[in-house]
Amino acid sequence: MIQHTVAFSLKHPKGSPQELDFLKEGMKLAQIPTVRNFRCLRQVSRKNAFDFGFSMAFESEAAYQAYSNHPFHQTFVATRWIPEVREFLELDYVDYVSNPLG
Amino acid sequence: MIQHTVAFSLKHPKGSPQELDFLKEGMKLAQIPTVRNFRCLRQVSRKNAFDFGFSMAFESEAAYQAYSNHPFHQTFVATRWIPEVREFLELDYVDYVSNPLG
Repeated sequence: MIQHTVAFSLKHPKGSPQELDFLKEGMKLAQIPTVRNFRCLRQVSRKNAFDFGFSMAFESEAAYQAYSNHPFHQTFVATRWIPEVREFLELDYVDYVSNPLG
Repeated sequence: MIQHTVAFSLKHPKGSPQELDFLKEGMKLAQIPTVRNFRCLRQVSRKNAFDFGFSMAFESEAAYQAYSNHPFHQTFVATRWIPEVREFLELDYVDYVSNPLG
């Protein structure tokens, strides 16, 4: 399993209807068929500038690519993510023990 | 639940015995009593410079503080983390739905 995460902050005022609308639309990414365990998260550490996170799992690199290439994801990136996200960082994790010194 | 994560890279050569020794010592953080669901992770996205991650969950802010203040954690930070880690980023998540527009 690959855990795909993205931490992000929005250009919208905190707690605004625009913020909620963005998150609601983002949660629809969970409907892309290869997405597992989708979570919409609030980032609460004061040691960084990100306010939110999306986290999801993929069973394989192919499943990850199918998500990346899916029309809903590509449209979301073009019409919502790029215009509305202020900054973001993608982090993808696999269990270390399944890839020792890989 | 609070999911505490830290992405990091080490000063050690990749695949070195020093790297493995650091990770093995870090995995002992799982033994601190308030830590839940500890995972040692490999960071595999090429969109950032981090090679590893630790992830754990806490049932409350008090449980998180008990971890932070635990002598094993404080010794690990002072004797291993600060000397051996090149860069890191802490991200802490809670479920968005449990804190709507919080």
